[in-house]
Amino acid sequence: MTENERSASDADPGMHTLRDVARRAGVSIATASKALNASGRLSAETRARVLEVARALHYRPNDLAHSLHRARSMTVGLLSNDSFGRFAFPIAEALERRLFDAGIALFMCNATDDPERERRHIDQLRGKRIDGLVVTARRTDLRAPITLPGHALPVVYVFSRVDSPDALCLLPDDEGGARLAVEHLLSLGRRRIAHVTGPERFEAVWLRAQGWRAALSAQAIEPERYLTGAWSESWGRQAAATLLADPARMPDALFCGNDQIARGALDQLERMGVTAPDDVAVVGFDNWSVMTEAARPPLTSVDMNLGALGDEAGAALIEMMAGARLAGARRLPCSLVVRASCGANRTTAEET
Amino acid sequence: MTENERSASDADPGMHTLRDVARRAGVSIATASKALNASGRLSAETRARVLEVARALHYRPNDLAHSLHRARSMTVGLLSNDSFGRFAFPIAEALERRLFDAGIALFMCNATDDPERERRHIDQLRGKRIDGLVVTARRTDLRAPITLPGHALPVVYVFSRVDSPDALCLLPDDEGGARLAVEHLLSLGRRRIAHVTGPERFEAVWLRAQGWRAALSAQAIEPERYLTGAWSESWGRQAAATLLADPARMPDALFCGNDQIARGALDQLERMGVTAPDDVAVVGFDNWSVMTEAARPPLTSVDMNLGALGDEAGAALIEMMAGARLAGARRLPCSLVVRASCGANRTTAEET
Repeated sequence: MTENERSASDADPGMHTLRDVARRAGVSIATASKALNASGRLSAETRARVLEVARALHYRPNDLAHSLHRARSMTVGLLSNDSFGRFAFPIAEALERRLFDAGIALFMCNATDDPERERRHIDQLRGKRIDGLVVTARRTDLRAPITLPGHALPVVYVFSRVDSPDALCLLPDDEGGARLAVEHLLSLGRRRIAHVTGPERFEAVWLRAQGWRAALSAQAIEPERYLTGAWSESWGRQAAATLLADPARMPDALFCGNDQIARGALDQLERMGVTAPDDVAVVGFDNWSVMTEAARPPLTSVDMNLGALGDEAGAALIEMMAGARLAGARRLPCSLVVRASCGANRTTAEET
Repeated sequence: MTENERSASDADPGMHTLRDVARRAGVSIATASKALNASGRLSAETRARVLEVARALHYRPNDLAHSLHRARSMTVGLLSNDSFGRFAFPIAEALERRLFDAGIALFMCNATDDPERERRHIDQLRGKRIDGLVVTARRTDLRAPITLPGHALPVVYVFSRVDSPDALCLLPDDEGGARLAVEHLLSLGRRRIAHVTGPERFEAVWLRAQGWRAALSAQAIEPERYLTGAWSESWGRQAAATLLADPARMPDALFCGNDQIARGALDQLERMGVTAPDDVAVVGFDNWSVMTEAARPPLTSVDMNLGALGDEAGAALIEMMAGARLAGARRLPCSLVVRASCGANRTTAEET
């Protein structure tokens, strides 16, 4: 170990090695190692001298050398197949925190939807002898599983899904989140609840629509007005204008597929002289503070609890690194954050 | 090396070692190593056999073992003293890409403004024998320098600033960006350009205000109306209402300290029946697509080119790892992205 340690420390002349500590303390390397690891038989005096020298030299054990001996690198890769966007940040942060508290460092790798780059990232991570891999994405839709030739590396997919019974995939419960939102509107007496959402090619779109339908059907209400478009405010404005065009069929609530759509809808209601939430209640999805706080009135929204997802991914990976075999798609609960736009919370109502 | 390699690979039973390759090819470990590294004297036949076996076993050299010998870990830490927010992510992405292309892997560390956590992160990274460190933050204000006892590790601060002549700090040129925006408004004939911005405790606030003042002064215009508040849409609405309250002093343009303020101001103009850009032109700062695209009309804004900052941080760190000594605060240029709200670009005007 010491020979390796010496050369590894060459890059960093300020970094002292076990050899330096031993030499300065006037003991053998084996003795210095025993003293620092509190193992073996040593006089109290020798141990104290070694510890004193180590402190004075700011000695830090070399994890690379330890990793080779311990058969653990205590590193994990985080691979995103797309850029780290608004959804990946909170997941990555919570994951990093959970792993760090377990003494594990996280490599950040962004493959930007380029399969060749992803392959090179995985190759690099294998060279670093990572103990596990977390795969995330900008959206929860199906992706190809990571294939590691002849390999038993623990892999967790979070906010990302693969079609394999052996894979562990952690996802938000989009359907359940939508059901929460619609049940809340129903409990407030709304009955004509339209759904305005994003592009149908997103899995999240049809899962949320399913939750909307299920909540209405449970109250024997026919789910009727369903509009898909873009994930944008501009689509929210356009959809609201369409839904309000016919006074005979005016909805009394809009459940929106994301907060940008909801905010656009609220703007359009105001332009058309329709009061939210009195005439039409509005609920969004994502609980993105930039949107919920700026909306007038402040927006009630479904929170996917992305931090909890990231934390759970870290916890699952640690279990798998310890030998547990975890598999299957797990959907973690969303929660509803109630503000003024749904009509439940008149006290925090309109700012402006 | 081989003994180390064998134990390191125990964690990952699918991963073959140099020893496995040598055994399968019927050669010594030294010979296998020579064949794979294309070094030493070997028969073409032996070399071909070793390479063939290595391919069949999906052999991947162990970087941990190499790192110990090469005195380079080929890893770098990215430390944020605050959570990875909207500004840190584009920086981190570009940094990661630049380092990856140089064969360097990036550890992601989030200290969340907790000095004790930051200290533990640095300790962990030292144990991993990182070759360099990049420090970033949620805002560009002064922070305490990273202190590494007796240490010569290259450190780059990006979107973060320390008060030390030896430190390399890469920052956006906030003052220059503001000057660009105001000069553009001046070139369009605007003369009564007010500045609505965020909290004065931010360095970016006074740098941008300085740019606004400098551009006006250069045209012998007295910089007059300057309002500081929050970084929010709600503050933008309130400030616009204040500025427009007195028709005798009505500004013909608002230069806003960020895009949220600009968007709030645009909303308020509309509510008060004031047309943008005809009556009042508006320019924001950040070029954040979520805001610029949803604003009506689409928002002209200053871009801090955060990707270029991250890329430059990676390039500088690579130079420093190769022995270059770089220091000082460098401010990289911002650019102006012209849309309809400033009045220059009537063709892409209002969507609604």
